Amino acid sequence: MAKGSDAVKKFIGSDIDIAQAVYPEHAYDVNEIAAKLSIPEKYIEQYGKYKAKIDYNYLNNELKSKPDGKLILVTAITPTPAGEGKTTTTVGVADGLSKIGKKVVVALREPSLGPVFGVKGGAAGGGWAQVIPMEDINLHFTGDFHAIGAANNLLAAMIDNHIYQGNKCNIDPRKIIWHRCVDMNDRQLRFIVDGLGGKANGASREDWFDITVASEVMAILCLSKDIDDLKARLGRIIVGYTYGKQSDNTEKPVTAGQINAQGAMAALLKDALKPNLVQTLEGTPAFIHGGPFANIAHGCNSIMATRLALKMGDYVVTEGGFGADLGAEKFLDIKCRFAGLKPSAVVIVATVRALKSHGGVAKADLEKENLDALEKGLPNLLQHVENITKVYNLPAVVAINAFPKDTKAELDLVEKKCKELGVNVALSEVWAKGGEGGQKLAEEVVKLCELPNKFTFSYDEKSSIKDKIEAIAKKIYHADGINILPVAQKQIAQLEKLGMDKVPICMAKTQYSFSDNPDLKGAPKGWTLTVRNIKISAGAGFIVALTGDIMTMPGLPPVPSAEKIDVDNTGKISGLF
Amino acid sequence: MAKGSDAVKKFIGSDIDIAQAVYPEHAYDVNEIAAKLSIPEKYIEQYGKYKAKIDYNYLNNELKSKPDGKLILVTAITPTPAGEGKTTTTVGVADGLSKIGKKVVVALREPSLGPVFGVKGGAAGGGWAQVIPMEDINLHFTGDFHAIGAANNLLAAMIDNHIYQGNKCNIDPRKIIWHRCVDMNDRQLRFIVDGLGGKANGASREDWFDITVASEVMAILCLSKDIDDLKARLGRIIVGYTYGKQSDNTEKPVTAGQINAQGAMAALLKDALKPNLVQTLEGTPAFIHGGPFANIAHGCNSIMATRLALKMGDYVVTEGGFGADLGAEKFLDIKCRFAGLKPSAVVIVATVRALKSHGGVAKADLEKENLDALEKGLPNLLQHVENITKVYNLPAVVAINAFPKDTKAELDLVEKKCKELGVNVALSEVWAKGGEGGQKLAEEVVKLCELPNKFTFSYDEKSSIKDKIEAIAKKIYHADGINILPVAQKQIAQLEKLGMDKVPICMAKTQYSFSDNPDLKGAPKGWTLTVRNIKISAGAGFIVALTGDIMTMPGLPPVPSAEKIDVDNTGKISGLF
Repeated sequence: MAKGSDAVKKFIGSDIDIAQAVYPEHAYDVNEIAAKLSIPEKYIEQYGKYKAKIDYNYLNNELKSKPDGKLILVTAITPTPAGEGKTTTTVGVADGLSKIGKKVVVALREPSLGPVFGVKGGAAGGGWAQVIPMEDINLHFTGDFHAIGAANNLLAAMIDNHIYQGNKCNIDPRKIIWHRCVDMNDRQLRFIVDGLGGKANGASREDWFDITVASEVMAILCLSKDIDDLKARLGRIIVGYTYGKQSDNTEKPVTAGQINAQGAMAALLKDALKPNLVQTLEGTPAFIHGGPFANIAHGCNSIMATRLALKMGDYVVTEGGFGADLGAEKFLDIKCRFAGLKPSAVVIVATVRALKSHGGVAKADLEKENLDALEKGLPNLLQHVENITKVYNLPAVVAINAFPKDTKAELDLVEKKCKELGVNVALSEVWAKGGEGGQKLAEEVVKLCELPNKFTFSYDEKSSIKDKIEAIAKKIYHADGINILPVAQKQIAQLEKLGMDKVPICMAKTQYSFSDNPDLKGAPKGWTLTVRNIKISAGAGFIVALTGDIMTMPGLPPVPSAEKIDVDNTGKISGLF
Repeated sequence: MAKGSDAVKKFIGSDIDIAQAVYPEHAYDVNEIAAKLSIPEKYIEQYGKYKAKIDYNYLNNELKSKPDGKLILVTAITPTPAGEGKTTTTVGVADGLSKIGKKVVVALREPSLGPVFGVKGGAAGGGWAQVIPMEDINLHFTGDFHAIGAANNLLAAMIDNHIYQGNKCNIDPRKIIWHRCVDMNDRQLRFIVDGLGGKANGASREDWFDITVASEVMAILCLSKDIDDLKARLGRIIVGYTYGKQSDNTEKPVTAGQINAQGAMAALLKDALKPNLVQTLEGTPAFIHGGPFANIAHGCNSIMATRLALKMGDYVVTEGGFGADLGAEKFLDIKCRFAGLKPSAVVIVATVRALKSHGGVAKADLEKENLDALEKGLPNLLQHVENITKVYNLPAVVAINAFPKDTKAELDLVEKKCKELGVNVALSEVWAKGGEGGQKLAEEVVKLCELPNKFTFSYDEKSSIKDKIEAIAKKIYHADGINILPVAQKQIAQLEKLGMDKVPICMAKTQYSFSDNPDLKGAPKGWTLTVRNIKISAGAGFIVALTGDIMTMPGLPPVPSAEKIDVDNTGKISGLF
């Protein structure tokens, strides 16, 4: 039986139809994928025939001295309702690199379960640029997020039990900042009162649930180098503060370590820490591992998976969350800093439709040629490009994710404007054609990887919190300045007194604009970034700066996609798209 | 490398020390275990090297016409703080059957995650009679319970979203009976108010969380024959009732099917429905699958796993929850009825210590010989034995789970009293010796399986709810009669009008007594069973009769075992016991 999607590529249908045309009949056994990467059998833990976990001991024992491949980041313009296709492009570039004979590995984030049942459907690429088994990847996969949820909720139960059993640590229930989580879009849990029902049933307090991806445990898992590092980070999590204040007027933090939770939490996470190996429709090896909220966390796949991929592939293609102002900034300033990674090239995904949307065109009119609107929207793309090339000093290419109704005049205009910035543009037809449609882009990427690059962070982590936020606001968002509200100033002063300020900043900002106002499209100028709240994620090791209300628990739409998802008596799933 | 525990059996330590002396070094690869059962490779889905899921299509396609092996149920006396060792005995009898050359398969329940972090520690047998990998089995195993939790919580989110989006089904939020769940001992979630925070965040109402094992989804999974059956059952779940009443004054139920949840729920459960294959320390194949709350549900492992085991083993050893009044009753009257199973023999586990506890001895004094107390406690055992042999007409043997301090006089007394009832007693030394210590018991079991048996249910499911409860109360519990409180009478009338009364009864009663009063030890007489509430589990297909307050969300103790559980940098877990 021929393997990989080339055997069946004529077929056209929805994403799940395409995926099921290849999987399982034409998919490689995961052992064949592992063999492509020469992974010794003892480090492979199969999860069914098409998924495997790779033991981190392989990385930490045998691969340590092996040189790294080239790291390619796929990021995008500011998201619009028109969609950009970042994961699709990531998969397609990797398959394109495969097609031109390169040894390549993809490193992606795991999709969150909750949104699958909402509006979004699946999140494993699209068209002929997908990872499989897409059903499993979109549902429980290898259970990593369930393990993260369990570890998160064990800590929560231990905190309330600690208070119930006598509260030795003197935790003020009003100052608990650790919340329970569930991997479901469930608005009913956004604001709750728990511990009702009298003395035997806890102590009543206001509380809430987050979606699992928003848990700090998720961010920690993605940043940990091994189990010892994981445990140390879990132990440092600040769960709340004590009653009263310290002599210097600061709050006294209580950590997960103080209630002895880190060992059991790490035990729950020991397998989740192992990267998951699957394949693209064309049989390119793909590590899919971790998926922290791209807003209040750093939004990249795990360091462990990226490092493993870099030891195995000459080229590794990975992605960041949201647009480049959030996703690439955090990938570069947080993940690369923590992991000591140096990217070789950046792909910035745009679509003609999305650029017209930035130029003010309504969703219904996006299919009509509109050079004026395109020209108006282009500064969004160009500012992202400039950030990558001038701030981070990284070689970049713009990938135009092709749609059938894009006109030559539109594509030419994008190319011309990018060239003026010294940046190449490549048409990406990976949705319709898979790796073949990504070859041009892949060739461009290979060229970029040979260029010298002087990768630079956008700020020094040892500078003050204010200076770090200002650097991001001015250099990346192109704001005039920042306005730190009094409550945030107080929080900054607290962190400075605690000596916790010399860490990277994780910006929580709307993904729909360069600015903190989701309605300002394009590349807004003449505005000031408002910083409303400052939080410490002491386990993850970064400070979260909140610039608006960040929703950490989504809801379901009027007709949830859950109503259409089904499985037949043979186990075949339908309604994922 | 020698496989199985015989290679290392001299070693003595805690349960986890013993398990880790065998696993992984001396454990069989799960493919070797599958090969013992001649399972074709295409039906095996490995989860790591020592766990596998077996595709139900193997059962439904290829094994249909294969004759079943002999089914042996292990049950116990009324539980006491002294412990009985039911799972340990189940594993030990199976290993004993292996030792005497029989082809045997164990079928056990999956442990719940939450209690592992509380008082209980692990639940995969003990001493030299355990299933491995015990760490995985006690933690996430193959993710079944997480899938059940997700399906449960998806339905909950869809119900509240249905109301939020316009409430087409006219659900009265005060009458919602479907609750969210989490697999954690978390008393803080016993009574909550959710949907707070104003109009955009749901509609506020009283609510609560159950532990995952208490979800009706768990019971449904364990009773389903295939995906179509699973979906039909999920669709029948009653999630609540509408505003107002129907013309005949009954409440109008709203089902999961009416809000189109069953397809997506089944999609989440498609892999969880596949039985999990592991091994005992001695390499006996073990299916561990499903674990419904033994109180408000039927408390047995899945029908799918039991049926699969029966096709593969000449002998299948399985267990029920709690004491025989609850666990065996439900196994026989619910599971065997639904699945068309006919057990060949019943093993009733007792310990001298536990019998003395029933005779009134305090926990601290249980190690001293006390024939008087033993004699006083014996009626508990004898009444369970009589129920099995006289009500259900099944051959039975009493297994005395040996403790070092048991005296010969004590053991002789137990044997003599059982003999008077025509029941054999066998000493079980499986904790200390594994299968070798279970050989005598195994030989007894083999003999029983050859006896004719006229297995009879304790009631006719087509009789009235009152008659069914009365039959259980009088025949099994030995009550004088039943007292149905007015609210329960109303609920019965409602179910009769809905035509939902002709199904088995699932009794929710304290496990600590034959009666509904946990303080009445031994075999209490002259009491009346009070029925407080009647609920329908329409998806599972039984009616739950509640005789007291049933706690469906445990709490953590003053020093949770979570504080001792740890994992080292190689991934080795400690502190599970």
